[in-house]
Amino acid sequence: MKKKEVLVLKELLGSNKKIASEIRERLIEKRILSVNLLSSPGSGKTTLLERIAEHLPPRYKMAVIEGDIETERDAERIREKGIPAWQITTGGACHLEAKMIGKIFSQIPVDLDLLFIENVGNLVCPADFPLGTDTDLVVISVTEGDDMVRKHPKIFAQTDVVAINKVDLAAFVGVDPERIAADYRKVNPHGKVVFTAAKTGKGVEELLSALGF
Amino acid sequence: MKKKEVLVLKELLGSNKKIASEIRERLIEKRILSVNLLSSPGSGKTTLLERIAEHLPPRYKMAVIEGDIETERDAERIREKGIPAWQITTGGACHLEAKMIGKIFSQIPVDLDLLFIENVGNLVCPADFPLGTDTDLVVISVTEGDDMVRKHPKIFAQTDVVAINKVDLAAFVGVDPERIAADYRKVNPHGKVVFTAAKTGKGVEELLSALGF
Repeated sequence: MKKKEVLVLKELLGSNKKIASEIRERLIEKRILSVNLLSSPGSGKTTLLERIAEHLPPRYKMAVIEGDIETERDAERIREKGIPAWQITTGGACHLEAKMIGKIFSQIPVDLDLLFIENVGNLVCPADFPLGTDTDLVVISVTEGDDMVRKHPKIFAQTDVVAINKVDLAAFVGVDPERIAADYRKVNPHGKVVFTAAKTGKGVEELLSALGF
Repeated sequence: MKKKEVLVLKELLGSNKKIASEIRERLIEKRILSVNLLSSPGSGKTTLLERIAEHLPPRYKMAVIEGDIETERDAERIREKGIPAWQITTGGACHLEAKMIGKIFSQIPVDLDLLFIENVGNLVCPADFPLGTDTDLVVISVTEGDDMVRKHPKIFAQTDVVAINKVDLAAFVGVDPERIAADYRKVNPHGKVVFTAAKTGKGVEELLSALGF
């Protein structure tokens, strides 16, 4: 990268970080636990949110911000579960930025307990753009192979909770979920691992407990 | 984006396009068919290349440039098949750029017939950075769900060939590969679709034929 490009990038990241800090303060003030949900496309993030909506004890109120390059489809799926959801379409951008969350913030109910932000399906770019959330949750599908952590060490080193999803397919694809978990523990010894099968609901209670619910 | 950011991005894309044109000219001059291989992480790109190496008639010579954020693993897997392979590690960047290919160009054997460039596992960013190849081949795994084309219309509109992979798992994940194919034909009526199962080699002959071999 040329010097000029590096400077512009630094400015962009700096401005994102500042807005993320402001969002974080407002979330803490409102006592909302917030989760930045990251993964490759198709790993089962939205299905996992549908299951979380079904398993969350009714005394807690959740909402979801959906990030996608195009389409309102994911937000519609969440709304069908009776959960408030806002769709951000980035129109080509490979990640959400804090300022996009900031624009929606005024619409978030004051009595909320748990806010999920489902990032754009991409394991690279979102790592550089914190959104002000408490917790980073990355979903890996076993169908993506057993080398996902080794190929993306940066994002996993900063991830608090990993859900290894579609474990019901592990035998069919010849992938050992324990191997993925072991790789993650190497780059992040303090992180939590949960094995899930979003389609059937397996592991969703454990995931909620890993998030503090 | 601010005006300054837009200008820097335009400059970056313009410089990439120029180098891509130079690479394209050199590939045509050497009569090498070149393929930019794109997908989300874990869709089976490298396994598909291993199968292609096994099925390509011996009169043709192939080579592979591997793009990854980290690790030499993919290039090693290809070399084990007796195929020359070069690894580019982007160290965080979410896509390959034409200048990275340019640096390797002098090492490419002159009698090559088929050059695959396996891009970084990411369906968003590589769409903006042409590499000078003849053909864009995108791999979708059925395990990623049936909405991959609808969520990434831009990349599929410019894709010449789509391999819908892991079709042996379609029934387990409840995804109809024909639905993905229909979505692709809507955004790109001239594209070719091949159904593959890289693990077993199913569809690899058809894929080679779709690429002109």
